Amino acid sequence: MRWAIVLAGGVGSRFWPLSTAARPKQLLPLAGARPLVVDSVARLLGVVPAERVLLVTSRALQAALQEALADVPRANVLAEPFAASTAPALAWATARALSLDGSATVLSVHADWTVADPAAFRSAAAAALDLAEREGAVVTVGARATRPEIGYGYIVPGEPLAAGRARRIRRFVEKPAAAEAERLIASGALWNTGMFAWTARRFREEIERRTPELASALPALDRGDVDAFYRGVRPISVDVGLFERTSAGAVVAGDFGWDDVGSWAALPRVRATDAAGNVAVGAVHAVDTKDCVVWSEEGPTVLDGVADLVVVRSRGLVLVTTRERALHLKELLARLPPDVAGDGTAGAEGR
Amino acid sequence: MRWAIVLAGGVGSRFWPLSTAARPKQLLPLAGARPLVVDSVARLLGVVPAERVLLVTSRALQAALQEALADVPRANVLAEPFAASTAPALAWATARALSLDGSATVLSVHADWTVADPAAFRSAAAAALDLAEREGAVVTVGARATRPEIGYGYIVPGEPLAAGRARRIRRFVEKPAAAEAERLIASGALWNTGMFAWTARRFREEIERRTPELASALPALDRGDVDAFYRGVRPISVDVGLFERTSAGAVVAGDFGWDDVGSWAALPRVRATDAAGNVAVGAVHAVDTKDCVVWSEEGPTVLDGVADLVVVRSRGLVLVTTRERALHLKELLARLPPDVAGDGTAGAEGR
Repeated sequence: MRWAIVLAGGVGSRFWPLSTAARPKQLLPLAGARPLVVDSVARLLGVVPAERVLLVTSRALQAALQEALADVPRANVLAEPFAASTAPALAWATARALSLDGSATVLSVHADWTVADPAAFRSAAAAALDLAEREGAVVTVGARATRPEIGYGYIVPGEPLAAGRARRIRRFVEKPAAAEAERLIASGALWNTGMFAWTARRFREEIERRTPELASALPALDRGDVDAFYRGVRPISVDVGLFERTSAGAVVAGDFGWDDVGSWAALPRVRATDAAGNVAVGAVHAVDTKDCVVWSEEGPTVLDGVADLVVVRSRGLVLVTTRERALHLKELLARLPPDVAGDGTAGAEGR
Repeated sequence: MRWAIVLAGGVGSRFWPLSTAARPKQLLPLAGARPLVVDSVARLLGVVPAERVLLVTSRALQAALQEALADVPRANVLAEPFAASTAPALAWATARALSLDGSATVLSVHADWTVADPAAFRSAAAAALDLAEREGAVVTVGARATRPEIGYGYIVPGEPLAAGRARRIRRFVEKPAAAEAERLIASGALWNTGMFAWTARRFREEIERRTPELASALPALDRGDVDAFYRGVRPISVDVGLFERTSAGAVVAGDFGWDDVGSWAALPRVRATDAAGNVAVGAVHAVDTKDCVVWSEEGPTVLDGVADLVVVRSRGLVLVTTRERALHLKELLARLPPDVAGDGTAGAEGR
């Protein structure tokens, strides 16, 4: 049967001051009325039922996720003892699926994306799962690149692998310069979304062969000792620990309006804007103002005659920065006193 | 004896959202630790004693001013039944001085100015009072113009009137265009501060002869019926109602760092700035930020990578505008919903 794994452990600082360690990006209603993670799980229904959605998160977020996702069995929300990048998280959740279902096939996604076209998303997911089941491939879904984003990884597809849209993977390019990103896109490269599919058995074989950072700890996982598994692994991403090493990789192209909502500056891509290009959430009054992102939780915020700003009012704090600088909030937080930056500096981005 | 009148009735909106009808500009510590009106009265001491300082304000502000000015007798804070521009206010206060002191000479100032050089201010004030007493002139003090301000009135001095720095007044120019302001300054024109001096007797004679808008109501003032006086006058400024009509006018030039603190954009002229030209009051954290004015009363405000902004956080409101647009806050307030603009739109600027 088909299963989905939702990685939901991120604790990033990119939505400071709104986000906190206790309420990170995936628990915020950044793209609409519901937290991103709720939309992410809803989007999977139709590919898999809610009972076969597993989430991997931190102990700090487990209860909040169980609360937010009423349709998902509470036992499906797995809490890591500590974060160790994506490969251990996916290995644990894949093993969990396999322990419940000897023929499990797995689709993995992140909790904090937005998708403009959920039907196209489900079509790409089904194609990836088909390919994993039919060919025994470990599959990554590449999203059509719509701009030369320098913060993303790119997948260069190779020769066609089967009927339909699957190809082999020629190579991965991580965070290229803008000119290289333009060349990559022109040559047909796709964004590396982090959306994967595999059969649980094939994934286990691949990890055992390709990923020594995890392999020796798998017996701990087999006997159900998750703490020992995490103590036994070296943190590594599944991109590096598996996809860059395997010969069984394949990529399925998808065009479903994928966005990782990487910063405040991304909101105009994923939320409705007014006629002047502003995103306004809360009691915002924007006069002669254009292309701003304003999030006001604690009373009215008035913008007058400004452009290209990000203004956030949350948790007793006010942030005024530019859309450009909002891409680098972590650098700002490092320069603020700890009592102002708060736990915004506490963690990595979770990918 | 010498008296001072401080006009303290203004209810302007230029410092919205900090200022309110109940706490207008003159009651705000805009230039330092104390409200502007407290500094304005302190600056007069040495010219006149506190017992001979009279204030004219509104009934709404009377108690707050009595509270703020512990050294001034409470009875010296006069409350107008309603605002009627400067001539009636000065006529009332001058009549009050005359009723207590048959040889009263009066210096009048506004409550909401800043002065960089109080000693030079007192010297100019003394020169104006000397001239009023010696020559029977009605005297205006012109401040040296240091920039081609288009929001001010200018005085073009005429021939020398006596020894020292007094001249006749050739003409007044109200709010010239920038090019004309430059020409005026080059030709020796001074800013019309609204600082005046006269003997109480001479002022009464002048009003009776030149100012029909007030003259017929003077008997009501003489019998102590202030309400009847105000009902009987037509609102008019002393500039128009007296100085532009009299042949007894004179101007004394002063160079004492006068500023009327006309908007948020004025604060860098009257408060200390950091190395990047920012004025920061309250819990402000400015990173890679220059030439901004930030007033934060309710928790931390973080500015990152911005320039030339005015950011104000007060009374549950946040305002983000530019220094240029801060000159025209009244236009903004007219475009905001009444529940946001509040009483910021209620009144005129009080000059």
